[in-house]
Amino acid sequence: MYEQAIVIRNDLKMGKGKMAAQACHASIQAYLHAQKISPSAVMYWMNEGQKKVVLKVNSEKELLEIFRDVNIDGLPCSLIRDAGKTQIEPGSLTAVGIGPEKEDKISKVTKNLKLL
Amino acid sequence: MYEQAIVIRNDLKMGKGKMAAQACHASIQAYLHAQKISPSAVMYWMNEGQKKVVLKVNSEKELLEIFRDVNIDGLPCSLIRDAGKTQIEPGSLTAVGIGPEKEDKISKVTKNLKLL
Repeated sequence: MYEQAIVIRNDLKMGKGKMAAQACHASIQAYLHAQKISPSAVMYWMNEGQKKVVLKVNSEKELLEIFRDVNIDGLPCSLIRDAGKTQIEPGSLTAVGIGPEKEDKISKVTKNLKLL
Repeated sequence: MYEQAIVIRNDLKMGKGKMAAQACHASIQAYLHAQKISPSAVMYWMNEGQKKVVLKVNSEKELLEIFRDVNIDGLPCSLIRDAGKTQIEPGSLTAVGIGPEKEDKISKVTKNLKLL
């Protein structure tokens, strides 16, 4: 099975609508990256129903560690920096998107994270 | 300015992670539809920073009225039906994605909706 994981900072004071918007940024950007570097994974994921998993971290440090690890493993990914016009500090890092890629490749990096 | 609007049902008992996942489904599907029917809108929207707005409705009926209206206006869109493996009834309609398209075209349909 293929999946896309979205990792969101839960320590920022974002409302659920703001969080959803950050998740969408991360999702689309990681999707576009995957289209470039692993189009067959995108195709399988689409055919399987586009599984998405939304996970949380509690600091910028944790978010960046995840982003570092997915890059080390060469996974398609995105790192979202919010313009910060509403609710949070301008330039805050808010979310990471990973995949679509094989579930086991993604969970190797995300296995210690909890669902949002 | 161009935007993408995500309309989510707030009457279902979805947690914020579940809501974010539904928003991502709606976002990617509407994006893919826009790529087909209005690729120039997608290009402008990407260059402008991919503005996304997340709005709420409080019933399936309201969600379907929005989906009807965006179709009447010929806007790129998506309607998300959740497999319902977690938290909600299988087959529930959860979200509508609209655009990317010009803000005024989208707000013609969404002007009475509140931010999630």
